[in-house]
Amino acid sequence: MGVLKEKGPIEYSKGLEGVIAALSSISAIDGKNGKLIYRGIPIEMLAKYSTYEETAYLLLYGELPTKEALEKFSAQMRELRVIPKKVEECIVELPPNPHPMDILKVALAHSALYDPDRQKCCREGVMRKVIRIIAQLPTMIAYYHRARTGQEVIPPDPELSHAANFLYMLHGKKPDEEEARIFDIALILHAEHGLNASTFAAMVTASTLSDINSALLSAIGALKGPLHGGANERVLKMLDEIGSPDKAEEYVLNALKEKRRIMGFGHRVYKTYDPRAKILKEYAEYLSDKYNDRKYIEIGERIENIMIRELGKKGIFPNVDFYSGIVYQFLGIPRDLFTPVFAMARSVGWAAHVCEYTANNRIFRPRAYYIGPDYVEYVQLEKRR
Amino acid sequence: MGVLKEKGPIEYSKGLEGVIAALSSISAIDGKNGKLIYRGIPIEMLAKYSTYEETAYLLLYGELPTKEALEKFSAQMRELRVIPKKVEECIVELPPNPHPMDILKVALAHSALYDPDRQKCCREGVMRKVIRIIAQLPTMIAYYHRARTGQEVIPPDPELSHAANFLYMLHGKKPDEEEARIFDIALILHAEHGLNASTFAAMVTASTLSDINSALLSAIGALKGPLHGGANERVLKMLDEIGSPDKAEEYVLNALKEKRRIMGFGHRVYKTYDPRAKILKEYAEYLSDKYNDRKYIEIGERIENIMIRELGKKGIFPNVDFYSGIVYQFLGIPRDLFTPVFAMARSVGWAAHVCEYTANNRIFRPRAYYIGPDYVEYVQLEKRR
Ligand SMILES: CC(C)(COP(=O)(O)OP(=O)(O)OC[C@H]1O[C@@H](n2cnc3c(N)ncnc32)[C@H](O)[C@@H]1OP(=O)(O)O)[C@@H](O)C(=O)NCCC(=O)NCCS
Ligand SMILES: CC(C)(COP(=O)(O)OP(=O)(O)OC[C@H]1O[C@@H](n2cnc3c(N)ncnc32)[C@H](O)[C@@H]1OP(=O)(O)O)[C@@H](O)C(=O)NCCC(=O)NCCS
Repeated sequence: MGVLKEKGPIEYSKGLEGVIAALSSISAIDGKNGKLIYRGIPIEMLAKYSTYEETAYLLLYGELPTKEALEKFSAQMRELRVIPKKVEECIVELPPNPHPMDILKVALAHSALYDPDRQKCCREGVMRKVIRIIAQLPTMIAYYHRARTGQEVIPPDPELSHAANFLYMLHGKKPDEEEARIFDIALILHAEHGLNASTFAAMVTASTLSDINSALLSAIGALKGPLHGGANERVLKMLDEIGSPDKAEEYVLNALKEKRRIMGFGHRVYKTYDPRAKILKEYAEYLSDKYNDRKYIEIGERIENIMIRELGKKGIFPNVDFYSGIVYQFLGIPRDLFTPVFAMARSVGWAAHVCEYTANNRIFRPRAYYIGPDYVEYVQLEKRR
Repeated sequence: MGVLKEKGPIEYSKGLEGVIAALSSISAIDGKNGKLIYRGIPIEMLAKYSTYEETAYLLLYGELPTKEALEKFSAQMRELRVIPKKVEECIVELPPNPHPMDILKVALAHSALYDPDRQKCCREGVMRKVIRIIAQLPTMIAYYHRARTGQEVIPPDPELSHAANFLYMLHGKKPDEEEARIFDIALILHAEHGLNASTFAAMVTASTLSDINSALLSAIGALKGPLHGGANERVLKMLDEIGSPDKAEEYVLNALKEKRRIMGFGHRVYKTYDPRAKILKEYAEYLSDKYNDRKYIEIGERIENIMIRELGKKGIFPNVDFYSGIVYQFLGIPRDLFTPVFAMARSVGWAAHVCEYTANNRIFRPRAYYIGPDYVEYVQLEKRR
């Protein structure tokens, strides 16, 4: 059995750091210079001029839509927002205490059973399944939040944009234009980010030629983790724990001494300031001034300064999750919905990568380097130690 | 933006073939010689002497249990078989037409909401969560099948082994000893297989430090695909389509000409006869003789001969999924439950790899090689083509 046990020490890239797992034309990250492009367009431009709907189209179809194409796509998104009655009934009956990411798993898995395109595997059928999921995740999240707080659910409003409609379904009142726009930008910035862990989980699942629902369910499960999307919620928890800017230094230094991670910092690819964090920070600043409530932003900026001083040389800087939470809380989004909001935004990137990879598919099946014993005898139960 | 676009052609391993993604001491495959060991023990020995419970313990804890440890573990498995009332109510209400793998996704996602160990992350708490899922998947599958066929659900019987209890819950009558034993062996043979796509999907998800439920949900989604666990069900469909041994040659040659894959053949790692298929074939033979119904086995063997003649030199041989279906149908397992049965068996391998990897975790975050444009201008909507 000599071949089973690989010999000698081994060099391998833990966490697949730097390993190329696919070719892609969806986005590119320049981790050294802190640049991010979606289909070639710098995200700063998209944050300035685009909408979530347009960016979703760009990511899914590879180019900016014409006016007609965008209208058609937006209309389809609006139409597909309504979730199946059975899924709605299931969601509103769910217990109020679990984490909403666990609820989203149930709701998404459930929705596959009632998908009218369930059996379709043509390109158009798959695209409709994709758009349906992207359109319905916000409804699922908002319905659950309304139900768990004892409020009536608010059906989606086809007059509103994707971003505005979510805030409306959540709060029961239409957001003002500025709020809707800032939320729209946050969604654009979260829409796609290469082979991050949740996207990669979706691709691995899809590579068996399983369906898009299963792939996105894997992604949601992965996003939930604190090393990934779960970080945004934990950032706000930390800001609360710290309580005031003058306590930040002690907190951070203590955490680092104890080898604990500061949530919202560090990235596998960016070794400099995350360009998304830069934009989100501006809006966090803006909203803090607007609402004259600078507590969080001040603690946040203190943490940032200390972290860059301590770990900047190691390439550790704020990532997308550090300032997003401050923005979300000014928009009245409950803290435990931050990660679900990340999910609803990123669903586009997940789907784009799944479609791109499976169009030229090969099953993901790496190897483990075996470090166990070559041979162990099966000792009968009676004779065991 | 020159750094964004990588230059020149690129060598990479599509599907991560041959790439080491982790160190592991759980199992090893010798793909050249057709050998498989679990924790050092050849599977032939386990198929001969072990039980699913004992093999599960071996895989999870790294060694064969003592008599006391096995009793304790088996008792825990039996006790945890009962699913939460809410999950049962949800399952029996689900529509009868979706694929049972989609049902299993709903049921498993749902069960997380009622897991009493939900908040636990100590080793013992996680182990209990793991054992609970392994113990409950069979109950979920059987309950759904009973409900969709208009029959009362049969609660698990704590007197029965894992394998026997599943057949009992499914059929409403206790299996004879031989049937139970053959099913037990099939479960042992499916329990673990290194970094196959479903296990890898579970590991990627878990590497964000998400929870075991999310990880196993990813695995179920991945297993569903026809290139992976979904193949066993399709093999029987093909045998039916072919109808009689003399039609096999034409069918296979035609399929190969049209570049269609023959389900149940080929493997990323085995380039020879899959040792699990060898054992399952013996039982498929045995049951075909016992029930004097050799239709499937004869078509199967014809396909095998033709495939080996045509593609054996390319290393394409029967895999675990080729003969398992014939065994299952003699045990009275409905065809669309073959993949769910694979899932309930493999849940142990999934969990073992998740626990092993996360004990020494690093987030999986490979890279895509960017093949899109370096820069695309954002053209305002009105000005677009
Ligand atoms: C994002 C993240 C998982 C990237 O992981 P990675 O590429 O595997 O990085 P590593 O875990 O190898 O970390 C490299 C080094 O930086 C340190 N480091 C990374 N992120 C850190 C953080 N947030 N706080 C403190 N130290 C950190 C590590 O301790 C390690 O130090 P060492 O070399 O002395 O052991 C990691 O930075 C992290 O855990 N961040 C906090 C969670 C978070 O914000 N996630 C959201 C990402 S968008
Ligand atoms: C299991 C499987 C996904 C492994 O995939 P892989 O390692 O990526 O193998 P590849 O897809 O690169 O196939 C290698 C070659 O063998 C051929 N091949 C592989 N499996 C084949 C099959 N079942 N029938 C016909 N040809 C097959 C491929 O067409 C390819 O030929 P080419 O080099 O001329 O293009 C693949 O063998 C398969 O699809 N099998 C059928 C599904 C199945 O039984 N899955 C259960 C696995 S336990």
